[in-house]
Amino acid sequence: MALIRSWVESANAPDGPFPLNNLPCGVFSLADEEPRCGVAIGETILDVSGLEAEGLLALDGGPYLDVPFWNEVMAAGPAVWAALRARLQELLTEGSAARAEVEPHLVPMAGARLHLPFLVSEYTDFYAGKHHAMNVGTMFRGAENALPPNWLHIPIGYNGRASSVVVSGTEVRRPWGQLKGPDDAAPRFAPSARFDIELEMGAVVGLPSEHGRPVTVETADEMIFGYVLLNDWSARDIQAWEYQPLGPFQAKATATTISPWIVMKAALEPFRVSTPERERPLLPYLHEPRPMLYDIALEVGLTPEGGRETVISRTNYAEMYYSAAQQLAHHTTSGCAMTAGDLLGSGTISGPTKDSRGSLLEISWGGKEPFEVDGGTRSFIADNDTLVLRGAAKGDGYTIGFGDCVGKVIPALEDPYAG
Amino acid sequence: MALIRSWVESANAPDGPFPLNNLPCGVFSLADEEPRCGVAIGETILDVSGLEAEGLLALDGGPYLDVPFWNEVMAAGPAVWAALRARLQELLTEGSAARAEVEPHLVPMAGARLHLPFLVSEYTDFYAGKHHAMNVGTMFRGAENALPPNWLHIPIGYNGRASSVVVSGTEVRRPWGQLKGPDDAAPRFAPSARFDIELEMGAVVGLPSEHGRPVTVETADEMIFGYVLLNDWSARDIQAWEYQPLGPFQAKATATTISPWIVMKAALEPFRVSTPERERPLLPYLHEPRPMLYDIALEVGLTPEGGRETVISRTNYAEMYYSAAQQLAHHTTSGCAMTAGDLLGSGTISGPTKDSRGSLLEISWGGKEPFEVDGGTRSFIADNDTLVLRGAAKGDGYTIGFGDCVGKVIPALEDPYAG
Repeated sequence: MALIRSWVESANAPDGPFPLNNLPCGVFSLADEEPRCGVAIGETILDVSGLEAEGLLALDGGPYLDVPFWNEVMAAGPAVWAALRARLQELLTEGSAARAEVEPHLVPMAGARLHLPFLVSEYTDFYAGKHHAMNVGTMFRGAENALPPNWLHIPIGYNGRASSVVVSGTEVRRPWGQLKGPDDAAPRFAPSARFDIELEMGAVVGLPSEHGRPVTVETADEMIFGYVLLNDWSARDIQAWEYQPLGPFQAKATATTISPWIVMKAALEPFRVSTPERERPLLPYLHEPRPMLYDIALEVGLTPEGGRETVISRTNYAEMYYSAAQQLAHHTTSGCAMTAGDLLGSGTISGPTKDSRGSLLEISWGGKEPFEVDGGTRSFIADNDTLVLRGAAKGDGYTIGFGDCVGKVIPALEDPYAG
Repeated sequence: MALIRSWVESANAPDGPFPLNNLPCGVFSLADEEPRCGVAIGETILDVSGLEAEGLLALDGGPYLDVPFWNEVMAAGPAVWAALRARLQELLTEGSAARAEVEPHLVPMAGARLHLPFLVSEYTDFYAGKHHAMNVGTMFRGAENALPPNWLHIPIGYNGRASSVVVSGTEVRRPWGQLKGPDDAAPRFAPSARFDIELEMGAVVGLPSEHGRPVTVETADEMIFGYVLLNDWSARDIQAWEYQPLGPFQAKATATTISPWIVMKAALEPFRVSTPERERPLLPYLHEPRPMLYDIALEVGLTPEGGRETVISRTNYAEMYYSAAQQLAHHTTSGCAMTAGDLLGSGTISGPTKDSRGSLLEISWGGKEPFEVDGGTRSFIADNDTLVLRGAAKGDGYTIGFGDCVGKVIPALEDPYAG
């Protein structure tokens, strides 16, 4: 597939993230105005709430876009998603007769504020990257016991906290928490000293599933509306003390940052790749009928306050051992109902090499190997560091981008219970 | 405190669950009508949505009851909760001049269908009963290592699945899942053979908290709107294979049944009791300024299909080591925002004796000591067994009840992926 040219000239730049092939879904506001649904095209946002209100975008069963979130479109299912995409491409394609009517609904992206693109119903985080699981397991349990016995059979997941999900650009305050080092006599309450990122992709569920009935991997793939970049901020010192026996809790509840644009599955079709060869046969309910991972290049940048960015990791979503469709199918095995707006974090996406690790914990090997950044070294995040995740699927003369997934870590509250 | 007499005669029965002292909040519907908010009084339900619409119940900042859930009242905070309660007691008290206007809004409970009383935002389950933690820990890790090292310092919790929460009376289908016994070479996909209950109380959060800011135990107590009975259905065989290292996932996602009535905190005030003496000092952020547990007698009944009920456990909410207020305060330590409609399961409430254990896992000691029920024995739940949780706070001549929390376990799907 090649670039589909648009009359929006900025959408035709070969390295731009938002060509007509992409059309990702977001929510934006201009100064003093209410948030509305928009679609990114080149350096502008198409106000699709406005288009729908004016009758230029009529979707079966609509209106869907008279609310400042995409959940209603998401729940409407694949036929509506396809119709939306086809109509937007028709309106925006080079030579479209609709240009004069559509152009007034374009606003410059530079002047818009971006909001969470959907209401997050529930948030589940997985642990489905093998290099990450091996790295973390080796650090904590030794190389022989690195992978838990169930890891090659189950896409391991745990429920996270939907109220922690924030849009890119939201500042993240370093959390307090209960901490205890292995040699401390008793725990103490203090700001986290080992605050970290996790580089992940997020799958956004559109079609709901029925309570009491599992879905196949094929159905799970159909239920997914699209993907975002996701940073699962993690307080490693809180996690180490709290996580046994029932899993991470407050260590993961400070914030989860997602990129502002949901890239619809259709835009990623040309980039489907298979999961790696299975090291143990999977149970049939986890078999993939076709490739369900995506070739998406990912990178992480760290910028100290007033300094320059250092790219600290480059990896690819294709490194995962399990796809989001497998994770979602597993998620329903017990009859768990999935809802429009459920968000599934892939798990940390580390590659096989040191420069492709998706967390500072792994890059600094638990703090034993600090790494260089502009003006100093890091083992974990320092106050006022800005972390950015970027993702791009590279097509033939075009790029599918997600928008940066950015968060600046501000200092912990001095007294968390004051005022 | 004594019984407050009502002109609704059935509310004055000394052992009835719904005297004027109680006034718990639910959602009901009559045949062919839309669900509405109601308050239980004696053997009837007061249609408070109707009262509000007619102007007999005017609350500051309202209307709140024009929707079939209590979340808007819950989010409005303690002043509105107190005003609601005061006005309802005024309308329903013996000799009230409003009787003639109010009486048409009473409907017999027997003819009403009850629904979930609130929209569950997120669901968190705790592990805060010491007898339960000791029993389970002893079975799995031996008596010396029964309590995890953090247990006496942290009210351990994990995020559950809000979409699993159903109202009392909803049938619960035995789940399929990935299972592997310790001696099996590989896992298999099969119906759970060790399906279980957990007897819990659920705290319902009303007032939200701010993202990024922890709350004290005192504030946490103020945020709680009320309490329900909660059965955290658990597939022990799925759990055993999946839960390391990140906690329970599909084992707990089949269903979570709550009682149909939220008992407001005010109704439980006379029953406040302190948590047990601390075995290790708690960090200051977990100190309780006053008693925050409640003396609520609890029991579990098991009825086989066509048989008689056997009461298999009698215990008390006061057996918990941590209160819901402590759990909620801990939940916010990392800055996690809490929302109106968040539901916090207490953890399984077992007492010190064999006949006060809150799960079949404990009662049958992992299946090694089957117990008697009508017509047979049980280690775990058999198909078509009905499990009921009951709770009652016993005052001076009156009782505060929650309504039964009932679920019948129906057989697993024959083929979970068929049509």
